[in-house]
Amino acid sequence: MDRPSASHTPAVPTTTPEALARRQAARKQLVKKGLVLVNTGLGKGKTTAAFGVLFRAWGRGMRVCVIQFLKHQNGNWGEVRAAKKLGIEWLRMGDGFTWTSPDLDETVAKARHAWQQAQERIASGNYDLIVLDEFTYPLAYGWIPTDEVIAWLREYKPPMLHLIITGRYAPPALVEFADTVTDMTPVKHAFDAGIRAQPGIEF
Amino acid sequence: MDRPSASHTPAVPTTTPEALARRQAARKQLVKKGLVLVNTGLGKGKTTAAFGVLFRAWGRGMRVCVIQFLKHQNGNWGEVRAAKKLGIEWLRMGDGFTWTSPDLDETVAKARHAWQQAQERIASGNYDLIVLDEFTYPLAYGWIPTDEVIAWLREYKPPMLHLIITGRYAPPALVEFADTVTDMTPVKHAFDAGIRAQPGIEF
Repeated sequence: MDRPSASHTPAVPTTTPEALARRQAARKQLVKKGLVLVNTGLGKGKTTAAFGVLFRAWGRGMRVCVIQFLKHQNGNWGEVRAAKKLGIEWLRMGDGFTWTSPDLDETVAKARHAWQQAQERIASGNYDLIVLDEFTYPLAYGWIPTDEVIAWLREYKPPMLHLIITGRYAPPALVEFADTVTDMTPVKHAFDAGIRAQPGIEF
Repeated sequence: MDRPSASHTPAVPTTTPEALARRQAARKQLVKKGLVLVNTGLGKGKTTAAFGVLFRAWGRGMRVCVIQFLKHQNGNWGEVRAAKKLGIEWLRMGDGFTWTSPDLDETVAKARHAWQQAQERIASGNYDLIVLDEFTYPLAYGWIPTDEVIAWLREYKPPMLHLIITGRYAPPALVEFADTVTDMTPVKHAFDAGIRAQPGIEF
């Protein structure tokens, strides 16, 4: 059988010769590095992609931890149940914030406290991967200054520690700082067809 | 403290009044439904977002399974190790296909065999969530006809079964058929900066 024909091969170019050469050079390198990954955009999959990497890293015996900046500590979603079964450290530091929350001061104070908790863990050297879930919101809304966070990470993040930051509206300076950034772009969503959120899929 | 000011609130509109009304109506519905989710696009996070949902569903005690259409059975990535530890059924049905594979006939035959295995499991009623990882490629390259797959799913997929299909180049008919579709759009990738793939993060 022939290679996929031009009529089957999607027209979207996936790379350029220059990018391919850089990637081939990268594959040959022996240098390892802790990456900063950002999953942003308005679509689904930002947080679940972080959990999927966590699952993969946990499979390799890596020391992992999740800090959720907005989720309430009483939430008992599927991922929290899974983490409990596996003994994965999983901090829910928020107050269940939504845009209709009555007390935004409390939300802001909790987000800042969560960042302190994150800083302790990041600087400790006790982890290989830390997920900062929905951390973009305190940055995007100015509750925690993005430039201070980046300056702090440049100074204190252990070189081999991987960080995954999720949430909409990733600030441009964070995108610039990160190694890998993906925008989860919504194409269509079941909600818009009148289908409710499904346990195990959405939460 | 005030609500986030206009200068902090990102300008991107996240919804329309009509979409919001549909979503609010959807939240009130009691109807449950097995969803078909598609994670496509050229960026990172298509497969890991599927694994994250798997992690969440497994946390809820749901019956889950992964069928990988291109990955070789001898691969021992982090996610395979995690699945073994958790007793999650995880089929790697491919031959480690790449675009430079010497024998495409073998790749095609294995993909078709994987679809048979998927059909048996989908129709069995024994699962709550099945991930069809990299299933878009056999469809996009015409090895398995997309219209036949969709017609078969309409007939035989149990109404409550959730399916997640991942991979680039999701065919338009599949996008039309699916309930929720996300395009993982690359913004930047560490490879392009000369950083090699990292165990636990990329595989």
